[in-house]
Formats: sequence, structure tokens, C-alpha cells
Amino acid sequence: MAHRPLDAPTTVVVVGAGPSGLMLACNLVRYGISVVILDDRPEKTSAGKADGMQPKTIETFKQLRLADSLLRNGVRVYDISFWESAENTPLHRKGRQIHYPDHLVGAADPYILLAHQGMIEEVLIGDLEARGVGVTRNGRFIACSRSPDRQQLTITYEDLSTKTERTIGTEYLVGCDGARSKVRDFIPDAQLEGEMTNASWGVLDGVIDTDFPDLWSKVAVRSHSVGSILWIPRERNMTRLYVELSSTEGERVDKAKATPEYVMALAKKAMAPFKLEWKSIEWFGNYVVGQRVARHFNDEEMQIFIAGDAGHCHSALAAQGANTSMHDSFNLAWKLNLVCRGLAKKSLLATYEDERRKVAMDLIRFDVEHCNAFEQGEAALAKNFDDNIRFISGVGAEYSRGLLTKIQSNLVPGGALRPGVLLVPAKVTRYIDANPVDIQLDIPMLGQFRIYVLVPDIPSMKGFLEAFCARFKDRRSVLGRVSALAHQSYKEKPRAKAASDDYIQPDRYTTVSHLFTPSLVTRSSKSEFEISDLPDVLRQSRWTLYLDDADEKQCTDKWVGKLDSDQGAIIIVRPDGYVGSLSLWREKGGDKAADWVEEYYASFLI
Amino acid sequence: MAHRPLDAPTTVVVVGAGPSGLMLACNLVRYGISVVILDDRPEKTSAGKADGMQPKTIETFKQLRLADSLLRNGVRVYDISFWESAENTPLHRKGRQIHYPDHLVGAADPYILLAHQGMIEEVLIGDLEARGVGVTRNGRFIACSRSPDRQQLTITYEDLSTKTERTIGTEYLVGCDGARSKVRDFIPDAQLEGEMTNASWGVLDGVIDTDFPDLWSKVAVRSHSVGSILWIPRERNMTRLYVELSSTEGERVDKAKATPEYVMALAKKAMAPFKLEWKSIEWFGNYVVGQRVARHFNDEEMQIFIAGDAGHCHSALAAQGANTSMHDSFNLAWKLNLVCRGLAKKSLLATYEDERRKVAMDLIRFDVEHCNAFEQGEAALAKNFDDNIRFISGVGAEYSRGLLTKIQSNLVPGGALRPGVLLVPAKVTRYIDANPVDIQLDIPMLGQFRIYVLVPDIPSMKGFLEAFCARFKDRRSVLGRVSALAHQSYKEKPRAKAASDDYIQPDRYTTVSHLFTPSLVTRSSKSEFEISDLPDVLRQSRWTLYLDDADEKQCTDKWVGKLDSDQGAIIIVRPDGYVGSLSLWREKGGDKAADWVEEYYASFLI
Repeated sequence: MAHRPLDAPTTVVVVGAGPSGLMLACNLVRYGISVVILDDRPEKTSAGKADGMQPKTIETFKQLRLADSLLRNGVRVYDISFWESAENTPLHRKGRQIHYPDHLVGAADPYILLAHQGMIEEVLIGDLEARGVGVTRNGRFIACSRSPDRQQLTITYEDLSTKTERTIGTEYLVGCDGARSKVRDFIPDAQLEGEMTNASWGVLDGVIDTDFPDLWSKVAVRSHSVGSILWIPRERNMTRLYVELSSTEGERVDKAKATPEYVMALAKKAMAPFKLEWKSIEWFGNYVVGQRVARHFNDEEMQIFIAGDAGHCHSALAAQGANTSMHDSFNLAWKLNLVCRGLAKKSLLATYEDERRKVAMDLIRFDVEHCNAFEQGEAALAKNFDDNIRFISGVGAEYSRGLLTKIQSNLVPGGALRPGVLLVPAKVTRYIDANPVDIQLDIPMLGQFRIYVLVPDIPSMKGFLEAFCARFKDRRSVLGRVSALAHQSYKEKPRAKAASDDYIQPDRYTTVSHLFTPSLVTRSSKSEFEISDLPDVLRQSRWTLYLDDADEKQCTDKWVGKLDSDQGAIIIVRPDGYVGSLSLWREKGGDKAADWVEEYYASFLI
Repeated sequence: MAHRPLDAPTTVVVVGAGPSGLMLACNLVRYGISVVILDDRPEKTSAGKADGMQPKTIETFKQLRLADSLLRNGVRVYDISFWESAENTPLHRKGRQIHYPDHLVGAADPYILLAHQGMIEEVLIGDLEARGVGVTRNGRFIACSRSPDRQQLTITYEDLSTKTERTIGTEYLVGCDGARSKVRDFIPDAQLEGEMTNASWGVLDGVIDTDFPDLWSKVAVRSHSVGSILWIPRERNMTRLYVELSSTEGERVDKAKATPEYVMALAKKAMAPFKLEWKSIEWFGNYVVGQRVARHFNDEEMQIFIAGDAGHCHSALAAQGANTSMHDSFNLAWKLNLVCRGLAKKSLLATYEDERRKVAMDLIRFDVEHCNAFEQGEAALAKNFDDNIRFISGVGAEYSRGLLTKIQSNLVPGGALRPGVLLVPAKVTRYIDANPVDIQLDIPMLGQFRIYVLVPDIPSMKGFLEAFCARFKDRRSVLGRVSALAHQSYKEKPRAKAASDDYIQPDRYTTVSHLFTPSLVTRSSKSEFEISDLPDVLRQSRWTLYLDDADEKQCTDKWVGKLDSDQGAIIIVRPDGYVGSLSLWREKGGDKAADWVEEYYASFLI
């Protein structure tokens, strides 16, 4: 047996440095968790592969303050057009529509952002490096074994550049290693389940010379002679082309036949009489559609996890892959952080599979319908879009009731928020510096919860605020006690800082606790109160006081509906931006509201 | 005499790599003009100095696609608060107001962006380097001499690192070398004129620990015991403090006395009873206010120019310095480009002094009033702000009638545009890809003019569009002829590209001419016309066709007022974003409109 040098132990080994693995590592490193990232490739993705960022993913990158270069360099698709040809009808536009209509989706960034996978990887790698962490390249995961006390894992991998085996001790292992995941093999009973179809697609990225007028929209073409084609505009003047290979043949197309030339010939035939020439080709790939989900996303000990394509695969047509994969990681990262730090019970990790496997199942259900609609042409496809557009955007990926998403004890009067949904974008004015901000983005994600207190009228709710806030200062309360532990934990194992953090000043948001950031949203005007009028806890968190006066569509109305002046709403938001729970109170209810918050946290905090 | 090695000749030597010099170089390099930048400092600015970017300057950086990092890392000031104390009245807030009210300014970015001078320099240097040009550091300008034929300049400078003199041959010399400009000495009769006052200020950047509630607003304090203090929030949790030194003393303060400690003591006294402690100090400076403008901004031969502080100096209170300086350069750069390329008459360069000296005079007039208002307290200062807020924002820096800003031949019915003002921000939808865009920013600045054709109803104005556009294809027309010259010129001396240009695709905007980009703005809906229905010239410029449907406040209304369906407006926009001229036409007026455009250009094109 080869010599196996022992690497320095770590807390989490992430296998795979694609979008899902990098998103996980990036979050964990920011939270202060030690990570080793193994990837068997010698370099990051240079072209092709996943390329569409959905509205929710754009928001995620904004929350991480990593969206700038992608927004600057990506291409934005706002509309979709449908073209068809029939035996006796030449190719013509059947319809055209906005991709993410505001009334259906309500996203702050209502478009698909096309930026190839390498650009996304680059951004995440850049952030990791700014925080002192690199990817272990040429590192092929081989095996995982458990220590006799079952506490510790030992990871074996091969350094492909030196052909040597090495090992690392770790507490957790996460496989972000794609559809053919090797890590998955180490989770009992985790095989992929579902159907493989005959549907096969060729994918081509290149610069096109054409007189086809809709080249810069997303275009779904249904050709009587060729089958389905999907056009997606790309950065750097490129166009991505998906061409259906199988339906013209009746059976799966021989891989050898699926060449760029073959795909280009099909596309030319389908797009006639429009001119179609390729000035350059950057990438070509093909895939067979299967809709499959792993039976489990983690082992019973909750030490080994899979995320991304390792847990689910489906067609590429609706540009969901990298998006869902990164959101798997986004969901897992903060939970791992809290458990690794000993601040939450290990059972918190079980919610990962509960929540993300549900989304994966929703995804393949949608994908089957979407692929079928593609076959059926414009009317079916347009309807499929309408029915699923919130889900496609990522905004509609919702979690069922569970440990972290609890039914409210007393219902709020209206508004869009309920447990398990994402915060709805809203504009407010930051009290302290009069900056209009997007409230859903303003508090940096530091692995902490957010507790929003919405009181339309501060003077009328003074007693409520005092009683509610007093609890957070009480060391005997759940939040007080675990906040003290968190304080100690982050002191010993601080979040990894980047130089750019100096411009964000993350410390402003953990003045009260490293576990949660309290925040006030009010309709009272700036002239009606000073920061010094507020209870201690809110005074301390002076960067998270907001005036609900920045937009005609008020944040309060959007989130919980109209409130009376003697009412207040409490919204608990999880570290990943999902609503945990929310409830409504009257002026005398401050103590009860604090009890209710305590109850929420008691079920999973240590 | 020392040995003088001859550097490679260049087209423009820029002396000084501060904001003004770098902005000039950056533009020239982008336009494809060869530049040498001399700076006597060994490195860029590391702290302090100029720090406030006004709304117009933010727009300028957005137009250059260079705003991202500044927007991400800078601090935004949206409001200003006024505090006063009197003999028997302790310090109290007298008022608070929005800094750039929308109804007065209408800027897309209605705030001051605080980012220290080094950050601005870094962005411009980064862009220069991406295009293959560096700053010649440790290079101190010594002298300029003229060749016997007076065509060529020879610049002598000292390489401070080797203590050797070197020379460069050049066609143009621009001094961006500050208030004590050495280049200015080589322009006859260009001395600074105006008053020096006794008013003297200490300036301190540092991190403050205070319970003063308005620390993150701009704050003007009038203290009965100390005099005037100005607070400005800064990036990285810092605060800049301007403390008036003289008025307490009755005469100019001894420089030796103006230490950080002295300034801090004054500030503490003024701000009592609030706590005021400095956690750290990054920079300290002091200056004596003078309001002076150079008699000339260029020599008679129009080969030597000055820009920025070399041409005008004033107080720092209204954060105008770097802004006005960069806009000097912005004004000069495109004119130099056209003349260097032989596309415009040399007389075009005379408009630089006409336009920018006028702004400099406006600036010091305002500055005198502003400083006086500061002395007089809140009411006077608030009024001064209201009266001058458009000018302070940079949006109100307007040019008088001249060669480039011509009175329209037939008036437009309303709207904000007239010759000599900046384009008013407006949202439109780009036809080709349905992207909502800011029309004033969308067409990249490539040194070309823009010609906007606003026709509410395309079918009704078909004849107009055909006749108007036909002229641009005619090689015998001014625009046709000079476009052909431009085509040849840019072929021989192309614009310097950066790798990031791949994501912008500048070629999309010069399909018709390198001299101007035509653009269509219409109220016709997307379903009413195809690109192929448009005249040749507009068909070619398919990335600059806009639907005026993106905002309730229509672009057309904002720019020229309500148009009838058989009306059209033509707006000529200069390369720096200023309106050159505009006019209104009926359906039959296409030929006349083309004549009118020809006339505009004939006066300064070759």
C-alpha cells in the first residue's frame, strides 16, 4: 500500500470545487469553520457547463457582496420568445413574454443572468483566497472511514500530480462531486432514484452571425422537421444553443453522431430561412435527460452529506442546476456552523435533508413537465412557464413546516411572509445614515439569525419594545445563554476576514449577539424619535434601525400587511434568509412575544 | 548639463497622476491616443486628500464602467444636519434635510460618495494598466520647449529615482499638477487670479468613538465658542472632520499650532456635551482658503493646457475639487482625440477654456458664498444649499452657447434638455434584448457623439426616418465624409482595449460610424415593428434602439416634452454627455433635419 501522509486535520472536507462545493466552502470559511476543498481537476472550469443564474441566486450573491463582477459581465435575459414551424407554415414567432413578470415573481432582479460556470467559480474562489483558503487541486477523493468512537472521519484522496495517497482527519464530509458522486457511495441507501429518458440534447456555445431577430432573447423553437431548440444569449457576444437530438430519431442518438457539426446542421435546418453561421465555437457538450434524486442526502450519523448534482439531476433546459446546487450548500452551511460550534443540537442537521430533498423532488417534478411542454410546443410551454415561474426563479423554492419553519402562534393580518418562504424584497431607509437600502440584503450574512420587530408607531408600542427587548439581555433566557456561548465561540474561532470587510464593517451587526441581529422597522418618522429613545438592545444595534418610508409599497405592508398603531409583528429570519416564524402582538404583549421567540430557538439551540 | 536620454515620442504628456491627470489619461488611452503620464510621487495617494464624489461624478464613472468598486466600498451621504450652540443655548440640532432632493437635482445617484482619493486613483490606474499604460512615477516635470516649426513640444523631466534628466517629444502637454502647477508657468498670462482669505481649516480623518447621534450624516456645526465644524462620514468606519482654525483667532493660525491635537481639542469643545474620542487617526492636513482661477487654461497655439487645481482653487467644504478637476479632463479628452486624429479643426480645442473656465468661475463664485454661509450658521447655509444644490451635485454645471452648444433652430415643446446641459437620467427598454436600461449610460463612451432620434410613433414618421437616415449613408455629406476618415483613423490607431471590453462589446456601438452612434427612442410597442422595418442606419445600430415604456416618467417627456405622433425630435449629444443641440420636426422634415445635423458638425469637423 502506498504511503499515506497525514494532512492537518480540519472540520469539514468538501469534495468538489464546482458551484455547490465552492458555495459551501465560501460560507463555512466566512463563518469561521476550517475547511479543506478537494477537487480532482487541475483548474477551474474554463468554458461551458452551467451558465444561468436565476433571480434568487443573484440575490444570494448580493447577500454575500459577491455579485458585482457577475452583474457587470453577465448577460441579462428578460424575455422569452416562442417560434414554430409546421409542415406548411414557415418558421414564425408564436409569442413573446416577459420571463419573470413582477406580479408573479416579485424579484428584485427579474432576469436570468448568463455567466459561465467558470466566472461563478472564480468569484467564489476569489473570496476564499481573500480569506486565506485555497482549493486543493488534483485531489481525487477515494474513501472515507470512521474512527472507532465514530466521532471522527478519515478521508483518503489521491494527489493526482504526484500519484500519492494522502489522508485528512475531519468531523464532516460533504460530497459536492456531481452526478457520479463518489462520496454518495459512503452514505448507505443514498442511490439516485428516478427515470432516465431517451431525450438527448447537444449544447453549443459560440458566436453566431445571423439575421434571426430574437437572438438576444431566450428563444424556444419548435421545428416540424428538427424538433426542439433552445437559444440562450451569453456573455462575450456568444449564444448557447440546445438542440434536441433524439426526437427526430425516435431513439437515443449515438454519442459519436452528436458532434458540433451535426448540431449546427440541425439548427440551420430548423432556423431556415434565417441565416445562421458560426464565427467561433467555444464549447460543446451533450447530455441525456434523467430526473433522479438521491434517497438520502446524509448518513444516519449526520457526518456525511451530499449537495448539488450529487443529490439530484435533471435536464438543463430551465437553467436550474447550479442554482439549486448552490442553495443546497447555502442551506447546509449555517447549520454546520452552529453545530460545529456547539451552539445547536445535532438534530438541526436533519433539517438539511428534509428541506433540500423536498426542493429536489419539486424540481424534478417540474422538470418532467417542463421537458414535456417543450415537446408539445408554444402553448404548453407558455402555460408551464406561467405555472412554475416562481419556482424557476428560485423565489418559489419553499420549505414545509418543520423544526425551523414553525407555524405562527398568532396570525399576522396579511402580507406575503409565512414560515418557509424567503423575505420579500422591500426598500427602507436606514435610520442612522438616511441611506435607502434593500432591507432583505442590508444585514450581512454572518451565520446569524435576524429578528425583525415591525412597529408602525414607536410611541404607542414603547411598553412592548421595552418588555420584548429586555429578554435579550437576560443571561438566563435561551437567547441570552446561547449568545454568551456564541460570544466565547467566535472569540476563540473568529470568522475569517477579508480585507474588503473593512468596507462592510460586519462588527456593526453583532453588537447584541453573534447568534442574531435585532432590527427595527417603523413607520414613525425620523423627527419623531432619537436612537437614544429606544431600548438598550436596539440602541446597540443602531445600523439595523429602518424607517419604512422609502417606497410607496411599504415594507410592513408587503411583509405582514397593514398594522394598527398599537400592533407589532416579530419576524424570525434564518441565516439563509428564509422566514422561520412570525407573529403579531399588541402593546401589552412584549413578554409573551419574547416567550414565543425563546420557544422558537429552544427547540434546536443547545 | 546632465545627459538627457530621449524617451519614445508620444502624442500627449500629462503631468500629474491625481484624479484630473488620471481621468484625462484614462480617456485618451481608451480613445486610442498615445499618452505619457508623469508624476513626481513614488506612489499613488494612500490616504486623505479629496474624498467626495458628487452625483455627476458617480455618473461619469458609471459611464466609464468604473464605478463598481467605488460604489461597493464608498460611504453614501444622503442627508445633512445642522447643529448650533449659542452663549446660553447648548449644542442642538437646528435642522436636517435631504442633501440632493429629487425635485431640485433629479440625479440617478442622489448622494455624495465618500471614497478617498487613493481609491479613485486606483480605479483609474487599474483601467490604464488593463489597457497597457502605466504611470511614470518619480518623474518631475521641469520644462517644456517648442520645436522651431512650433509643431512639436519637447518635455524635460527629472527621474527622481536616478536623479537624471530625460526628455520626451510630444504634440500636447497637459498640466494636471495641482495648485502649484509647473506646467502653468509655460502658458503665457495664465497666473491664478483671485483672493486668498484668512480662513484656515484643519482636516482630520480617523475613527471616532462618540454618542453624537448624527455621525453618519454630513453635519455642519456652528459653535459659539469654537466656530464652524464640518463632519463627513468616511469609508472604513472613519469620519472626516473639518475644523475652522482662524475665526476664533481673528487672524490666520500659525501652521505650527494647527496640529491634530489642537484640532481634536477644538472639536471636543464644540461638540460638548457629547463624548468625542479618537480610536485612530489616518490623516491630517490643513489649508488656507483661496478662491482663484487661472487667466487662461491653454496657450495660444493650443498645445499646452492645464486642468484641475492647476486652473482653479477654492475651499474643500463643498467637496467640489476632485469632481470639477476630473470634469475638466473629461471635457478636454474627447476634443484632443478628435483633433489628434485630424477629424476636427484645431479651433475645437478653444472650447475647452470657454467651457471649463466658465464652470471654474461659477465654482469660486459659489464657494465664496458657501464659505460665508458657513460663517453665518444654519439658516444661511440651508439657503445656500437650496440655491446651489444642482451646481454642487455637478448636474448643474452648464455650458453657455458656443461652437458645441448651439441654439436649436426650431424649439422643442418642453422637457428638460437644452444645449449645454447634461442628459437627464431616464429608463427605457432596449429593443433587442428587452433589458431595462438607463439610457444616459447605456451607450459606452468611445469618444463618439450620440444622435438620438425620438419618434413617438414609428409608422407615422416612416418618411421622416427614411429621409433623415439616408443622409448618414451619403459619402458626400459632412458626416459621411468624416465618418470615412474616422473609419480609416481608428483602423490605423485603434482604441486601446482591455480584456473586460469583451463583456461590453464596444463594436456594437460603432457599426454606423466611429464618429457618432445613432439611436432611436420610440413609444411604438415592440409588437408594432421589427428591426427589419427600420431604415438601414438604425438597423445597423440594433443595440441602440429603445422603447420608451420602462418608466411612468417617459424618457421622451423628460427630455423634450410631449410629442405628437407625427413629430420627432433630434438630440445631438456630445461625447462627454452634454447636449449639443436639439430640434423638433414633422413627418416631411427628414431632409431638413439632416441638413440641420450637418450644419452642427460642419462648424468644427474637418
